[in-house]
Amino acid sequence: MPYKENYPSALLSEAVEAISSLPGVGRRSALRLALHLLKQPAGNVHHFTSAINDLRDNVCYCKRCRMISDEEICSICSDRSRDQRTICVVESVRDVMSIEATGQYHGVYHVLGGIISPIAGVGPSDLSIKELTERVTRLEDPAGAEVILALSGDVEGETTAFYIYRQIEASGIRITSLARGLGFGDDLEYADSLTLGRSLTNRQIFKP
Amino acid sequence: MPYKENYPSALLSEAVEAISSLPGVGRRSALRLALHLLKQPAGNVHHFTSAINDLRDNVCYCKRCRMISDEEICSICSDRSRDQRTICVVESVRDVMSIEATGQYHGVYHVLGGIISPIAGVGPSDLSIKELTERVTRLEDPAGAEVILALSGDVEGETTAFYIYRQIEASGIRITSLARGLGFGDDLEYADSLTLGRSLTNRQIFKP
Repeated sequence: MPYKENYPSALLSEAVEAISSLPGVGRRSALRLALHLLKQPAGNVHHFTSAINDLRDNVCYCKRCRMISDEEICSICSDRSRDQRTICVVESVRDVMSIEATGQYHGVYHVLGGIISPIAGVGPSDLSIKELTERVTRLEDPAGAEVILALSGDVEGETTAFYIYRQIEASGIRITSLARGLGFGDDLEYADSLTLGRSLTNRQIFKP
Repeated sequence: MPYKENYPSALLSEAVEAISSLPGVGRRSALRLALHLLKQPAGNVHHFTSAINDLRDNVCYCKRCRMISDEEICSICSDRSRDQRTICVVESVRDVMSIEATGQYHGVYHVLGGIISPIAGVGPSDLSIKELTERVTRLEDPAGAEVILALSGDVEGETTAFYIYRQIEASGIRITSLARGLGFGDDLEYADSLTLGRSLTNRQIFKP
């Protein structure tokens, strides 16, 4: 090939390299995006890159729940109409956004910032679990409050949930987890047997 | 929704806005990418954005063929082992890379930088057609040289090819276009009738 590393220019090669480091973006898509950016006015490209730099450099996290926020205390934690004694524990910022999108949750959150995973080298001290236990300890009358463990159903999620459970059970706070079962509209025929089995075990009183 | 425009932070919202301006990237993917970048070390993110800024600000184009290049004359144009009298006219940098990847072309290129499209407001003067006609005019003995019109087979491509043909036919240069027909390994049953029809019209002597 006449090109060094198959690219006609080192600048292009480096940009493709950088763009393809994004998750789910292969080298072909990265090339397409790089050539797209090259065709845009310089101002647009600088706006694009500075929006990303700004996000990385200036983002703040809520002091209470570790959610991304523009203020010290996020809009959810500072909303007095929300139930501040129901704390939904989630892995990531995205999970908060997913739950908020349902419009059915009126408590507050606690963002762990990850999940316990020995393979990925993430231990309890890398997450905001200590902050959670302190938050629970500071609650008046914890027995009347609730922590919802809204973590994923895989091994890491269950490990993290169990770890947190052990940390806060002594407080006497009510600890719940998300209901698991068939999705709404799901066909029995296509459900995996584990989900179907748990759906049976956790069956509920039929309320028409 | 408690979030302004559904995002917990204006910085995040702006970054998602910027990322989703890329072609083929929706708002959901943009959010995923923004949150990914947020989790990376600041140095990696700055490297990412500066690679893109560098590309946009410092890229050069070959003075002869308008290909992206780090030098004034690109590595293909300055390669004396290539046939400098066969000029393959393509729409974009990407097309050059596609043809180079075949390893079967040993001439040089001319990158138009687009295609004539009245709908998109792109006319002949927006492309490097004038540079191409000058290049052809400067050739010694143009009758022994060749211009290959390697443009797409749609209306814009055919219009552009025809326009270029009219600009350079007087020079007496040989003007060819890419063979069109069934792809290798294509099934007759699934070919569109236009392609199949042209494949029949342009049939070739069978050489086993």
